[in-house]
Amino acid sequence: MFKGGQTLLKAVSRCVGRSNAVKLKRFNNVPKNQFNTASAMADKFKLPTRYGTGEKSVWVEYIQLALDHKPKANLGQGFPNFYPPDHITNALAAAATSKNPLLNQYTRGFGHPRLVNSLAKLYSPLVCQNLNPQTQILVTIGAYEALYTAILGHVDRGDEVIVIEPYFDCYEFMITRAGGTAKYIPLKPVPDPNCGNNLTSANWKLDMQHLESLFNCCTKMIILNTPHNPTGKVFTMEEMQVIACLCQKFNVICLADEVYEWLVFEPKQHVKMATFPGMWERTLTIGSAGKMFSVTGWKTGWLYGPANLIYNCTVVHQNCVYTCLTPIQEAIASTIEYELARFNTPECYLRSLSKELVPKRDYLANALKESGFIPHIPDSGYFMMADWSKLADKIDLSKEKDEYADYRFTKKFAKETSVLTLPPSAFFSKKSKKLGENFARFCFIKQDENLATAAKQMKDWFCSKKLKS
Amino acid sequence: MFKGGQTLLKAVSRCVGRSNAVKLKRFNNVPKNQFNTASAMADKFKLPTRYGTGEKSVWVEYIQLALDHKPKANLGQGFPNFYPPDHITNALAAAATSKNPLLNQYTRGFGHPRLVNSLAKLYSPLVCQNLNPQTQILVTIGAYEALYTAILGHVDRGDEVIVIEPYFDCYEFMITRAGGTAKYIPLKPVPDPNCGNNLTSANWKLDMQHLESLFNCCTKMIILNTPHNPTGKVFTMEEMQVIACLCQKFNVICLADEVYEWLVFEPKQHVKMATFPGMWERTLTIGSAGKMFSVTGWKTGWLYGPANLIYNCTVVHQNCVYTCLTPIQEAIASTIEYELARFNTPECYLRSLSKELVPKRDYLANALKESGFIPHIPDSGYFMMADWSKLADKIDLSKEKDEYADYRFTKKFAKETSVLTLPPSAFFSKKSKKLGENFARFCFIKQDENLATAAKQMKDWFCSKKLKS
Repeated sequence: MFKGGQTLLKAVSRCVGRSNAVKLKRFNNVPKNQFNTASAMADKFKLPTRYGTGEKSVWVEYIQLALDHKPKANLGQGFPNFYPPDHITNALAAAATSKNPLLNQYTRGFGHPRLVNSLAKLYSPLVCQNLNPQTQILVTIGAYEALYTAILGHVDRGDEVIVIEPYFDCYEFMITRAGGTAKYIPLKPVPDPNCGNNLTSANWKLDMQHLESLFNCCTKMIILNTPHNPTGKVFTMEEMQVIACLCQKFNVICLADEVYEWLVFEPKQHVKMATFPGMWERTLTIGSAGKMFSVTGWKTGWLYGPANLIYNCTVVHQNCVYTCLTPIQEAIASTIEYELARFNTPECYLRSLSKELVPKRDYLANALKESGFIPHIPDSGYFMMADWSKLADKIDLSKEKDEYADYRFTKKFAKETSVLTLPPSAFFSKKSKKLGENFARFCFIKQDENLATAAKQMKDWFCSKKLKS
Repeated sequence: MFKGGQTLLKAVSRCVGRSNAVKLKRFNNVPKNQFNTASAMADKFKLPTRYGTGEKSVWVEYIQLALDHKPKANLGQGFPNFYPPDHITNALAAAATSKNPLLNQYTRGFGHPRLVNSLAKLYSPLVCQNLNPQTQILVTIGAYEALYTAILGHVDRGDEVIVIEPYFDCYEFMITRAGGTAKYIPLKPVPDPNCGNNLTSANWKLDMQHLESLFNCCTKMIILNTPHNPTGKVFTMEEMQVIACLCQKFNVICLADEVYEWLVFEPKQHVKMATFPGMWERTLTIGSAGKMFSVTGWKTGWLYGPANLIYNCTVVHQNCVYTCLTPIQEAIASTIEYELARFNTPECYLRSLSKELVPKRDYLANALKESGFIPHIPDSGYFMMADWSKLADKIDLSKEKDEYADYRFTKKFAKETSVLTLPPSAFFSKKSKKLGENFARFCFIKQDENLATAAKQMKDWFCSKKLKS
């Protein structure tokens, strides 16, 4: 209907009216001046310097790679490719078509009342607080906007933020955007002589003296991501005690990114920083409906913590999006209520999903071992770091142009096996990228047949390489 | 399940583990120091100065008023309280429960492919461009985030932004946040001697010489909201020509906030700034699914314009939310496709809604006249400015403490009539608040029975006042 010049012309006269079309012609004779050149516009309309060069992230690049190459198994980006449970998606359908006409209209800016109430019920006992749903919880557009409001709402020019590597790369941009400086400290894989070759995410350790040396009077915040992406590490009580102690000693906020809180594999247990003595009043904790209920496309997260810190986050939230989506929040609230009613049963999705993931994790780990990788078995989450350095002599990376070896490896590996993974050096600061270069990050929250395809592709490839050598 | 101390204790030991609970006790003896006082924390953890004092908006105050007083007719906040058409809400239910498991997972960050494709089909003929859905459209969390990305993505320290008053108050905060300065110019109600007392939104005029005087080499952007909220003014070709001419002369971006584009009442017609000669390359246009399909709670909007300007917006978007919700975007895409297929029929919702609103507008205008107001009949949108100055001697505002008369009036009026409206001075800069003080803003996109209740409450009140006087 909209194609063809004549319809376009009709559309224009519909826009501007017939008689106005004449004036429009006349208006064409606007006096031009020196400002109206393409280069003057390009110069004046460039990105403000506070955004740096606006460089592309690993996500944009690798999602495009997936679109271009259509890998047989995409174990890159972290999202389930299976159905969330019916009661979750049905809850959204019910909210959308509800008899209540207000469920498709604006709701409270800082969180839909039913959702903040259900979050208060869920988290109050877990943080040993009687959470006030009005003042101590903020609902956000995913954990992503939760991070944004927490960082922009607290970090100011000259502030330092301690970031543990590898990290979700958005931390870095947000800290810079706030005028702060990120101070990085890496987790390093430390082999345990007692465990032989069986490396797990617990082998990734923090140098506690190095950590202590980063704290000073300019430190405003430390971001603690536990359970940790991409290693799957669950921080130990001892590590968290030290961090809590340093936060109190130097009057520092802990931003606890706990989006994988429900995905911890037994016998490990998730510990919440907000439950440490003296830490509630300086901890902002982030959760995610997307990770919790396998609906990453619902982009709904939240922050909870003391009212004074949450207030600062609401000001940023009010500045950039103002309010989140009503039917989605209603659906999440009703899903949380449903899960709370069966919280202590094995059917509760908050308990069952992690159990479902263990065989997937173990299957992928085996497949990786059989294909020449050394996988680091994660204690949580849905990612696995796998060391590919023993494969280096089996794959020719010389034609790949990227600066970092893991980018070269993952790209070439995808071409040769049709299995897409992500290069973990993207999650290290410039200085520490070396620590990520020997790894590829595999996502295993995928349908069993996709994992089987990945396993077969990798094994076939590995066998063909062995035959050649 | 979560109530009571013992369950709380169980929850804690579930968090930290039994043996760790002992360590936790030991940890209680963290050496305290001078930083750990409440005042040291309050001082260090305060809102960064770039957010000002984080003052509350009229929205927070009046939405709370609505919750507290439960008015019989709430004509304050702008959202329909009737059902959106079934095919719209059914589209969301269908997306949520689709056979495609990916419709509940992350989608493309700058816009779900099906949605940007349908937006390109919808808008290409309207802006006389062949829109590239990949580079010339960005989907955002409502028009609100579209404004945020456009302003933060272009305005830099020292830049000036021209804002026409009355304006959506968030413009001001966003400009300040970007380091820019807002330069205000008011629309003023100018009675037309030929029209007697019949004032319309077209009586609100811009002083074009004043406008010209605001443009200079520091001007980065002008925000043009047409159709205009709260007056309902549809800017004329002549007014837009002058603005277009000035934008080109001074190399300025026009941010065209056109969220009410589908709500223009005949014989008025919406004109798009992007269609003026020489303006496409410097215009960013904002649209809204919430306003278009009467689903304000879906919080989905978009920007379209030349690729270089859209790129700057994507960098900000990527920094704060990264991607929008998948099932909602899928539902909007399928709704747009549905409406495009019947675009030239009277059933098309993009045409029928404005026709549905005319009798509501006229009904409210009559009721206002019969209650002593002078309504300014809007040519578009769903708000009406009504002058209450002739009622001043009938209402005692002396006990209301607010600084501006319209705040005092709307609060007292709500108490006496149980009809809630908004004070328009909130949408003027400090210097011009006087221009809004004689008005109240009424929203008429409400069910007929709500408008009837409002009419009855106001007339009863007015009669009782007349009897007394």
